[in-house]
Amino acid sequence: MAKQKKQTRPKAQTPKGFRDYFGGDVRARTEMLGKIAAVYHRYGFDALESSAVETVEALGKFLPDVDRPNEGVFAWQEDDDSGRGDWLALRYDLTAPLARVYAQHRNDLPTPYRRYAMGPVWRNEKPGPGRFRQFYQCDADTVGTASMAADAEICAMLSDTLEDLGIPRGDYIVRINNRKVLNGIILGLLPDNEHTRELRKNPRSLSDPELNLGDYDFVDPEAILRTIDKFDKVGGNGVFELLTSGRKDQSGAFIEGVGLSEVDAGRVLSFMLARGKNNEETLSNLRSLMGEGNLDMHQEIGAYHEGLDGLEELEKIASLLAAQGYGPDRIVIDPSVVRGLGYYTGPVFEAELTFEILDEKGRPRQFGSVAGGGRYDDLVARFTGQKVPAVGVSIGVDRLLAALREKGRIESIECGPVVVTVMDRDRMADYQSMVAELRSAGIRAEVYLGNPKNFGNQLKYADRRAAPVAIIQGGDEHARGVVQIKDLILGAKIAENATLEEWKERPSQVEVSRDALVAKVREILDSQSPESPA
Amino acid sequence: MAKQKKQTRPKAQTPKGFRDYFGGDVRARTEMLGKIAAVYHRYGFDALESSAVETVEALGKFLPDVDRPNEGVFAWQEDDDSGRGDWLALRYDLTAPLARVYAQHRNDLPTPYRRYAMGPVWRNEKPGPGRFRQFYQCDADTVGTASMAADAEICAMLSDTLEDLGIPRGDYIVRINNRKVLNGIILGLLPDNEHTRELRKNPRSLSDPELNLGDYDFVDPEAILRTIDKFDKVGGNGVFELLTSGRKDQSGAFIEGVGLSEVDAGRVLSFMLARGKNNEETLSNLRSLMGEGNLDMHQEIGAYHEGLDGLEELEKIASLLAAQGYGPDRIVIDPSVVRGLGYYTGPVFEAELTFEILDEKGRPRQFGSVAGGGRYDDLVARFTGQKVPAVGVSIGVDRLLAALREKGRIESIECGPVVVTVMDRDRMADYQSMVAELRSAGIRAEVYLGNPKNFGNQLKYADRRAAPVAIIQGGDEHARGVVQIKDLILGAKIAENATLEEWKERPSQVEVSRDALVAKVREILDSQSPESPA
Repeated sequence: MAKQKKQTRPKAQTPKGFRDYFGGDVRARTEMLGKIAAVYHRYGFDALESSAVETVEALGKFLPDVDRPNEGVFAWQEDDDSGRGDWLALRYDLTAPLARVYAQHRNDLPTPYRRYAMGPVWRNEKPGPGRFRQFYQCDADTVGTASMAADAEICAMLSDTLEDLGIPRGDYIVRINNRKVLNGIILGLLPDNEHTRELRKNPRSLSDPELNLGDYDFVDPEAILRTIDKFDKVGGNGVFELLTSGRKDQSGAFIEGVGLSEVDAGRVLSFMLARGKNNEETLSNLRSLMGEGNLDMHQEIGAYHEGLDGLEELEKIASLLAAQGYGPDRIVIDPSVVRGLGYYTGPVFEAELTFEILDEKGRPRQFGSVAGGGRYDDLVARFTGQKVPAVGVSIGVDRLLAALREKGRIESIECGPVVVTVMDRDRMADYQSMVAELRSAGIRAEVYLGNPKNFGNQLKYADRRAAPVAIIQGGDEHARGVVQIKDLILGAKIAENATLEEWKERPSQVEVSRDALVAKVREILDSQSPESPA
Repeated sequence: MAKQKKQTRPKAQTPKGFRDYFGGDVRARTEMLGKIAAVYHRYGFDALESSAVETVEALGKFLPDVDRPNEGVFAWQEDDDSGRGDWLALRYDLTAPLARVYAQHRNDLPTPYRRYAMGPVWRNEKPGPGRFRQFYQCDADTVGTASMAADAEICAMLSDTLEDLGIPRGDYIVRINNRKVLNGIILGLLPDNEHTRELRKNPRSLSDPELNLGDYDFVDPEAILRTIDKFDKVGGNGVFELLTSGRKDQSGAFIEGVGLSEVDAGRVLSFMLARGKNNEETLSNLRSLMGEGNLDMHQEIGAYHEGLDGLEELEKIASLLAAQGYGPDRIVIDPSVVRGLGYYTGPVFEAELTFEILDEKGRPRQFGSVAGGGRYDDLVARFTGQKVPAVGVSIGVDRLLAALREKGRIESIECGPVVVTVMDRDRMADYQSMVAELRSAGIRAEVYLGNPKNFGNQLKYADRRAAPVAIIQGGDEHARGVVQIKDLILGAKIAENATLEEWKERPSQVEVSRDALVAKVREILDSQSPESPA
């Protein structure tokens, strides 16, 4: 006898923190990524698609020091007979895999290697409203050159990309700073003693993983950076309070301060606010601040030199961009940019959209950052032991898509297909011929394939498909060699607004001969919108 | 003091069975998928991108009956405090997620729901040469209609897709069969007793998971299907031997037979070989075979009716396709198609490329199957309890890409960028202006960003980048307001073939005024190929 196995039904549910994308959303993203890829390609960047799965070891940062190394990543252990298989994980960004790819294939890759990559990344984080565990990134990086021309190029490319996507000049700004300048400031705040004097002689030390500033009885420099990063939210006074003794936020809660003296906090703030009317003025402000005696920056030692180094890099980038015509209306030096804590080693930049949107409470605010990046010279060395300088940018795909939608650059709904209704089930072949003709003419079209009994259901279906046009041919029309063509967009408009006279004057349904089907549909689609599915 | 932590270097290596795709390969696939999406969209199919991660429960087939349910999939358990978190897994195809999506969102989706999806899937299989654990699929499915018009539509769309990709008519064929016909044949072979009589009354029984034909003391029908599927490899005689007592293969090894009687094997074979000159003849062959008394098919009971049902479905599909002009030069009924063992419940089809390629031993063989699909009416019911009829097709992305390459439909190498060399490190801004101008004209271009000291390295770099043109401007050229433009493609040709006279006549390097840079580069690119990067 046949076996009887009963199983409970599985739940039809995405795992927590994951989501599905439908129709127009998928197409809008694909189109946006295609446009970005075209700009990157024009700049000489090559596509790279690395595997979604990496060894935990290669991803780094999440090395297994516990039994199950899935802190922040989705990880699992390979099955092998020994039970000691490799730990594998889904990539959490596109930069760590790039470092692995470059180290693995460096003999076959050009130097410098310009590459772009786009695709999903995964984070094993607690899901929450608007926080997803799979999302898209879109990166471009240049690996293997320390030239500031690479940094300038990526900023220019970012500017071109935004304009090619339809964000007009004036609605965005790319802001550049340099972590070395920030490092210089922070190192300048260190107490002057034997240890710190040693430390200041090494300008890169602040991003060195072997450095522990706690050993110097000094505040955590990352806390200073995180505080500076809040400038957009809390303003200059807020940053000053947070750098010193602390501050009450809007809800009345007290946020503890970083614990700098008011003099030191003032030094940090004066650097952050050094942006002038143009890049020349900003650079000169920074230089004179750095040279001021009251800064006590120990001009003869490292801290000062690291800061000066950063200034020179900014000057180079600014002059390269100016030569290519990227003025401060597009790219500007702004000492308040922090970006990426403890990760970058030189220039950092971010692209911000400056037009206003309404926040969830209906208050106007700037759209904010949609891309950011900078120079990171230490990633490849993890594999090879040799420093390989690199600089890159990452675009926040979901945020940028939202911005384009905000600017009306994306048709909010997918253009639906022309729907050919089925009046006579036995003449399915006739209806199929109609859609075949429409498709041959490049018009998106389909036959209704549900149960045709109830014609109302067919029109409901057309509505749900956002169909611009419905085609109807019953037995009578068939005998007379004609079809009915229903303009559903016009029909909806008339139903909403029109008087009876207007309704009569502009009928939303016309009868044409069967031969004229394609031409008439095309005409209606053209009349509906220049971006019709034709 | 700074802490000293020493860590061993990670290996720069993809996990076993995974790979990276570079440059031209990524772009070729993106372009191919874009063209396929355009056809699917024109047919009214909507894009869907479901999450890469699903619950193991929703994926099905791999339900946890062992401690670690990763048989065939990459799976891991969610961390939660209870230690009883959900098991999650990477999707192994695009059909199981579609069933989940449809069940989850069915109230918001149109019925029928036409959707397409493209993206990577993952299989936890032993990697081997040419066998990868991450690969692309590209599917289209219509969910929620039992109409054969949906099956016909998908076959027509498959044909259109192949032609739109540049595979000419005659170089491919879409072949259709129906699992019900096969079921009818196999059920007709069952011994005639009380149990099988009961069984034959239920035409769907062969694909019912609750059915165990072993209970009927009969051969495994899947073994029969698997054997029929070898027709292309071993021919009619081979299939006959394998259906009966067994067969020696080319290496001399003996393959055990399925154990049918010669009469029964003959019946199976006569159905398989029933393809006639055209669809009408094939259908009439099948019908008369089915009606023949010697088939002992128990015309009054289920087996016969299931077979007839299948025949009628094939007739409907054929007549719909004929009405739309898809003749047997494109789509043909072929009773030898099996496709997908035990999964499909009605029509099955596959697209085969019929042009010859050389196999790894240099012998000509047909390229073979690049896509397949069929009707599967039971997948959504797993979630909802209600049967939801569905039909779909899946394109083997990697195989189809290989085929297009074979047909010269893909430029084999990525078009490289114009490389502007750096003769004078201090004039980087000048070189950047040159590439900016070239890019504005839509020409892919880049400045050499490596160490410019050794000019030979710059030309080697241009070579590695497959650059069509190099630009050179030293101090002298700069003073005179000119640039040198090197045609690297022509240069390579001349270096290979030319006599000294030809070399002089057609110089591969020309000097033009700085103003004429873009125009001259464009002219050279146009002369190199109509598919130049311009």
